[in-house]
Amino acid sequence: MTSTDEGTPAFPEPDTGLLAPVRAGCPAEYTTGDHAVLQALLDAEAALTRAQSSVGLAPADAGRAVTAAARADRFDLRSLALRARDGGNPVIPLVEDLTRRIAAVDPEHAAHVHRGATSQDIMDSALMLIATRTLDLIITDLLLTGDRLAGLAVAHRATPMPGRTLTQHAVPLTFGLKAAGWRSLVLDAHDRLVRVRRSLPAQLGGAAGTLAAFHEYAPDGWCAHPELVAAYAAELGLAVPGLPWHTLRAPVADLGSALAFTTGALGKIAADVLVLSRTEIGEVTGTGGGSSAMPHKSNPVKAALIASTARQVPALTAVLHASMAAEDERPAGAWHAEWGPLRDALRLTGGAAHHAVALTTGLTVRPERMRANLELTGGLILSERLRARLATSVGPAAAKELIGRAARHAAEHGVSLADALRRESVPLPEAELRELMDPLGYLGYAAELTDRALTRHPHQDRR
Amino acid sequence: MTSTDEGTPAFPEPDTGLLAPVRAGCPAEYTTGDHAVLQALLDAEAALTRAQSSVGLAPADAGRAVTAAARADRFDLRSLALRARDGGNPVIPLVEDLTRRIAAVDPEHAAHVHRGATSQDIMDSALMLIATRTLDLIITDLLLTGDRLAGLAVAHRATPMPGRTLTQHAVPLTFGLKAAGWRSLVLDAHDRLVRVRRSLPAQLGGAAGTLAAFHEYAPDGWCAHPELVAAYAAELGLAVPGLPWHTLRAPVADLGSALAFTTGALGKIAADVLVLSRTEIGEVTGTGGGSSAMPHKSNPVKAALIASTARQVPALTAVLHASMAAEDERPAGAWHAEWGPLRDALRLTGGAAHHAVALTTGLTVRPERMRANLELTGGLILSERLRARLATSVGPAAAKELIGRAARHAAEHGVSLADALRRESVPLPEAELRELMDPLGYLGYAAELTDRALTRHPHQDRR
Amino acid sequence: MTSTDEGTPAFPEPDTGLLAPVRAGCPAEYTTGDHAVLQALLDAEAALTRAQSSVGLAPADAGRAVTAAARADRFDLRSLALRARDGGNPVIPLVEDLTRRIAAVDPEHAAHVHRGATSQDIMDSALMLIATRTLDLIITDLLLTGDRLAGLAVAHRATPMPGRTLTQHAVPLTFGLKAAGWRSLVLDAHDRLVRVRRSLPAQLGGAAGTLAAFHEYAPDGWCAHPELVAAYAAELGLAVPGLPWHTLRAPVADLGSALAFTTGALGKIAADVLVLSRTEIGEVTGTGGGSSAMPHKSNPVKAALIASTARQVPALTAVLHASMAAEDERPAGAWHAEWGPLRDALRLTGGAAHHAVALTTGLTVRPERMRANLELTGGLILSERLRARLATSVGPAAAKELIGRAARHAAEHGVSLADALRRESVPLPEAELRELMDPLGYLGYAAELTDRALTRHPHQDRR
Amino acid sequence: MTSTDEGTPAFPEPDTGLLAPVRAGCPAEYTTGDHAVLQALLDAEAALTRAQSSVGLAPADAGRAVTAAARADRFDLRSLALRARDGGNPVIPLVEDLTRRIAAVDPEHAAHVHRGATSQDIMDSALMLIATRTLDLIITDLLLTGDRLAGLAVAHRATPMPGRTLTQHAVPLTFGLKAAGWRSLVLDAHDRLVRVRRSLPAQLGGAAGTLAAFHEYAPDGWCAHPELVAAYAAELGLAVPGLPWHTLRAPVADLGSALAFTTGALGKIAADVLVLSRTEIGEVTGTGGGSSAMPHKSNPVKAALIASTARQVPALTAVLHASMAAEDERPAGAWHAEWGPLRDALRLTGGAAHHAVALTTGLTVRPERMRANLELTGGLILSERLRARLATSVGPAAAKELIGRAARHAAEHGVSLADALRRESVPLPEAELRELMDPLGYLGYAAELTDRALTRHPHQDRR
Repeated sequence: MTSTDEGTPAFPEPDTGLLAPVRAGCPAEYTTGDHAVLQALLDAEAALTRAQSSVGLAPADAGRAVTAAARADRFDLRSLALRARDGGNPVIPLVEDLTRRIAAVDPEHAAHVHRGATSQDIMDSALMLIATRTLDLIITDLLLTGDRLAGLAVAHRATPMPGRTLTQHAVPLTFGLKAAGWRSLVLDAHDRLVRVRRSLPAQLGGAAGTLAAFHEYAPDGWCAHPELVAAYAAELGLAVPGLPWHTLRAPVADLGSALAFTTGALGKIAADVLVLSRTEIGEVTGTGGGSSAMPHKSNPVKAALIASTARQVPALTAVLHASMAAEDERPAGAWHAEWGPLRDALRLTGGAAHHAVALTTGLTVRPERMRANLELTGGLILSERLRARLATSVGPAAAKELIGRAARHAAEHGVSLADALRRESVPLPEAELRELMDPLGYLGYAAELTDRALTRHPHQDRR
Repeated sequence: MTSTDEGTPAFPEPDTGLLAPVRAGCPAEYTTGDHAVLQALLDAEAALTRAQSSVGLAPADAGRAVTAAARADRFDLRSLALRARDGGNPVIPLVEDLTRRIAAVDPEHAAHVHRGATSQDIMDSALMLIATRTLDLIITDLLLTGDRLAGLAVAHRATPMPGRTLTQHAVPLTFGLKAAGWRSLVLDAHDRLVRVRRSLPAQLGGAAGTLAAFHEYAPDGWCAHPELVAAYAAELGLAVPGLPWHTLRAPVADLGSALAFTTGALGKIAADVLVLSRTEIGEVTGTGGGSSAMPHKSNPVKAALIASTARQVPALTAVLHASMAAEDERPAGAWHAEWGPLRDALRLTGGAAHHAVALTTGLTVRPERMRANLELTGGLILSERLRARLATSVGPAAAKELIGRAARHAAEHGVSLADALRRESVPLPEAELRELMDPLGYLGYAAELTDRALTRHPHQDRR
Repeated sequence: MTSTDEGTPAFPEPDTGLLAPVRAGCPAEYTTGDHAVLQALLDAEAALTRAQSSVGLAPADAGRAVTAAARADRFDLRSLALRARDGGNPVIPLVEDLTRRIAAVDPEHAAHVHRGATSQDIMDSALMLIATRTLDLIITDLLLTGDRLAGLAVAHRATPMPGRTLTQHAVPLTFGLKAAGWRSLVLDAHDRLVRVRRSLPAQLGGAAGTLAAFHEYAPDGWCAHPELVAAYAAELGLAVPGLPWHTLRAPVADLGSALAFTTGALGKIAADVLVLSRTEIGEVTGTGGGSSAMPHKSNPVKAALIASTARQVPALTAVLHASMAAEDERPAGAWHAEWGPLRDALRLTGGAAHHAVALTTGLTVRPERMRANLELTGGLILSERLRARLATSVGPAAAKELIGRAARHAAEHGVSLADALRRESVPLPEAELRELMDPLGYLGYAAELTDRALTRHPHQDRR
Repeated sequence: MTSTDEGTPAFPEPDTGLLAPVRAGCPAEYTTGDHAVLQALLDAEAALTRAQSSVGLAPADAGRAVTAAARADRFDLRSLALRARDGGNPVIPLVEDLTRRIAAVDPEHAAHVHRGATSQDIMDSALMLIATRTLDLIITDLLLTGDRLAGLAVAHRATPMPGRTLTQHAVPLTFGLKAAGWRSLVLDAHDRLVRVRRSLPAQLGGAAGTLAAFHEYAPDGWCAHPELVAAYAAELGLAVPGLPWHTLRAPVADLGSALAFTTGALGKIAADVLVLSRTEIGEVTGTGGGSSAMPHKSNPVKAALIASTARQVPALTAVLHASMAAEDERPAGAWHAEWGPLRDALRLTGGAAHHAVALTTGLTVRPERMRANLELTGGLILSERLRARLATSVGPAAAKELIGRAARHAAEHGVSLADALRRESVPLPEAELRELMDPLGYLGYAAELTDRALTRHPHQDRR
């Protein structure tokens, strides 16, 4: 329970992550919290003044003065949040406070705070900073996850397990191929995030994207774009925008797409782990958490939490995509609707990636359960193979008919497919029949596909 | 910057509302924050023990002891949030802390904390408490908003303004009818929230919804459902559920629907205010906020913030609706995906309703601007009327043709429709033509519709 | 491949349902197709003229003449669709064609086609007709589904099966309770649809919701609202609206909410069936479909198709909810965005309900597999019970510790929980221990809850 | 009304586009209709057999025979759609029909239809074909739209108009810069679609992604991946996949992201056109459509229809993103949920792009209205400039105070800002004051930004 020095109401409600275990305590929470947002806003203000200093639009000391004052812990977050209601964004009160703070020391430099800019220049640039800082964490976690999955793919290159389609055993595959597929999606996500990360631009346009106030303050003939804008982007470590993008929201849409992709990719792994962890299946373990009432349970909590993000982030991204249709030079609502979903998408994805490292590191694979499950259908899991083999002798139609009849008999009478086929006097020597019924003989190109997939490397970030 | 007594990492990131001015400081923020969630979880634990005391499953003192200990400010929110990661929800560590705290004083009573329950019993019940507490605020704000709108409808029962369709002037209407329409939507939202609010049930089912552990502790022949469940619901002020609803998520889906409806209803008002506030239109003002760069601007900030919620809540509700397809007796992900969106939907709607009171209270209507705008099309806004009148004399086809030609001439040559019709030698006496061109004469049943709409009253909450 | 008599391009692309097996051929497809939409548009036009005839605003014969001409098979759907692009909706060309058709026979009556109305009056009313016709089908299918589920609940009132939480066995429940829970959700959906269905209003407001053109044509002092509007609603079998709702979109939002609820409810059943159908679990069968490659497979196709709707309809509903924020007296985009999602939500829900009848009718429950699965954990599924019983003798903390240790031992060494407890010299007589390890003894109030749930009946539709 | 030769029910419900004027008749409708889907499925089957012929897994004639038979107009779409319900997808009945048709002519070749494949191989490949064919159309339309916008940007490089933020006049900009910004978004969309288009892969994996059946039929040591897969992809003109992607849904997610981006980009243009077309603003016209009741109206129909897609496609994309979390080797529901949304997203985007060409071609810009609107605020639109200029003489704080006071006075008393400043005895020579009040003098770097933006060219598609 806190009360601020500006007479604002007490604020008893920090968001501690109590309702979001998937991101509680993960690094992305620290780069996306309100403190981090405030620091990023201040970083953007300081970068702007420094950039103006560097191109001669402000005294050299002004940039230093603003930078020195731009420390989040000296500002009252809650007061800013409450005063943000008047103008609809927190930059307006922040500029007041920052200017006052600097004016108290050096009135000259105070004049160079925010000079020429509009709130949205600072807000958008700050959110891009938040995004790059968070993406760096996520990218690293995806690389780690990819490494773990490469290890699993190599270790289980030849570990057979049932392939399942529409919940039913279909044909065998290897766990190595499954892990290689997971890795492939993780690298896909990685590569998309890397591409988006290096494209995220600074924002500088002034009130309506013409940089007119900068022009007003500048010497004749000097062009703020690209010189000032480039300096500002360089100070922020962000890309130089092609145009001010106040209402050209490509960066936000791209971010949303890449984050939804990432939780989708990790959500695929989680979905599989949840199936394979089922009590009846038991092919993987070690992802577990406790239960308040049932001491024996080892719940696949990490997978469940990751799965929860794959349900939320697509919806948040839909809000970001819909906000592209932003009227005028600053829309009344579409812009304001981006902030929450963007932050949540970043921190949920950050949490998912963080848990994915732990999940893939701690995963215990149980080849003996996979092997046992392969036997469950009494050979029906190999019916496609039998059909293919018989087709070459009796023709495809007869083979389909024969296998279908045997499969029904096997299912109804609880006998193996081999026995049902023997009963049908199938034209196959007994030795060949036995060989055909071995799941290890029907793994197709699983090993080759796995090997090939492992030759892929994550896309390098060459700027 | 805080650090906890359990060695957990410092937690520098409270959610102050910096990125959500629409709800910063509004009452709903206080009923939905993590502190409020923690208190609601404790309230649910205390209610459960009291209910067991009341039906004889626990000593009478046990309920009192748990209730006395169940004060949120005595627990470490951040520690709970971080420890929630193990089991995937915060109830598990909370039960540990609550039990330890009571055990330190009275070991006997500690045995009755959470006895028989599962985490989800507490979590779901707490979220329903949060919801009812927040809905009460929203319902009140909607009633106030409805009252303001009734006042506007009465005051402007006969104030003509341009009706607009697909952005173009169509025919006149009154601002009173518009306000009555807004009120109608607000009452619709009110009535839906009232209905949902009184239907929100307590949750009690135990590990798999059979109440088996309660049965285990209970005397033979006694039935936990409905006796214990009813006592628990009564303690919480929630409805008695028909069945444990761990994976029968009607209450959450209904909440989501009603909240999306509410932001949609308020979003309609905001959409209209944003249009009417445009510099060129100027028919309403007084909803304004400042600008960091442009001192003259009076931005319709409240409307923009409300509009931002109407873009977010439908997406959050989509997550809730999709989570209904929850497998098993507790799903791995679908349940966990509900918490964040539900809380956000509640507090965004709470913020929107809070701003709606202020918006409708402070709205200044400018009949003179409406009147001036009615003249803008040089009478074309009355072409439907002219066409109708001419149809009775020259037939509908000829009337359509004649009016179309005159309208095109008027638009192209910048003359009034009346002049263009005179040029066409339209068969109307001059006096009638003049009368027909008066917008006040073509308001249809606007006044009657307004009067009728105002006879509607909000649905009473009679349980 | 067709070509029309108006020179429009050939139209080779009917939507046959090829990409939507969930609704291909189901009755709701017939009530929502373009032919049905066209008929509903014509029904609305005819009802409007009949209503005007009935209140004296048009000759009695006019209503009959329009009604006689309003047969969809006489109009060229594709031509209407293509000509709809000009004005943005199909009513404009439809009125032309309908008027021309009637004028050819009786020019007098042609003047009364669409008189006083705006396109949206017809479009909205037609979509409400489509909705009521489709809801009637869905409501019936939900009643049938509920009946099937009641039968399953009764039949399996005492059939024990594993309760599963976060994919792991938790404690036992009965299949009867599960089926009763499914039924409860189905009745919830039913009741919501019934409530929405009877609230769906006709739309009549004219160009800007003032009914001004009707006023223009009417005798002095006569009030179109409610007289004409009520007659029109009666002709359509729809509710009388409180106000014209061109931009007060409560009916559309309510429809969306109820449809998302319904696919969510059916999606819960599908999610469970998909789990229980898994090869390793096998507790239900008989929902199957074939495979192109694997003749033995019996895929839970109906459940998969139903599940696919529970993923789509919430997103479609989000579009409808977002369209509530509709500016002006007719919005430029928000209205147009409703039509597709509303139709798709109706026919997907119709398909889901249709498949749900078949799914619940054909479901084979396998108590012997449930029983076998109950044994899979070697008694760990009863650990909650053991812990409760031991708590009464050794206290809760010691009980938790003891059971936790035994459970870990059992899991690690592959012995039963009973043996692990014996090894711990647990203070329980052998006979009691054996009795405690019987899953049938730990079903809690499953039977009572089932019985109670079955006393609920679907809400009657009393208008 | 049709009835099929297979006794299937009559099918009266083609989707003619009646409810989707935005795409009715546009080319993308023809590439995404059921007929086109069927042809793409057949193309995929034919390509598979040809690929097997080319690598020696089938006789050379088999590929030719299947190709000759694979003509959509010889199959009964509705029958396929209805029979798709059994197995949950249309490939199963299609393979039956195709095989029977070929077997009737040449039984030998019939054995090579679909050999080794699973339904999903064909379905996914066909949807990628549909996507590439539709993207080609959209890409072309975006290039055309970009060209039109370049023309507008050049023509209006120096046309001043009010910049608007939060609905209020802010500072001037040029229409050329606005058009250049629109073009920038259109090129962004173009580049994303080009990138996605060339990445769309063929799908070939067999029942569980191991290509096992192909292995079974193949000579020893031969590897289906990459040889067969590459041949298949080449036949289809699709990219070679890294791995079979049955449940690695990157291509579908990427498609969704790019389509949502595109409708967002076009939606931004539409949003602006809708504002600028308003009766009171009137800065652009010529996008119009008629009205059924009001003959004078020229509604911005194309913009409204484009806007309607920007509301729908993000939600459809959310379904696609959520379907990435697909369990097993083929999920039960997530896959089936993709087809409808993917098709709708393609054809809605196709319609939006098609209308965008017409919208930007037919747009009439009215510089005189822009100029008049610039005068509306009596100079307040230049207050930022005045403040900047005064700040250099009286300091920023005093300047802010002074301008604020004058602006309030001007707004309240209806005088110009210049007069209000004169009243404040502002320390500016009259000549400078007059010059400062000229909107053309405060366009910042609008022209330079426009020129620079026009140097950008669409990304070339070099494979």
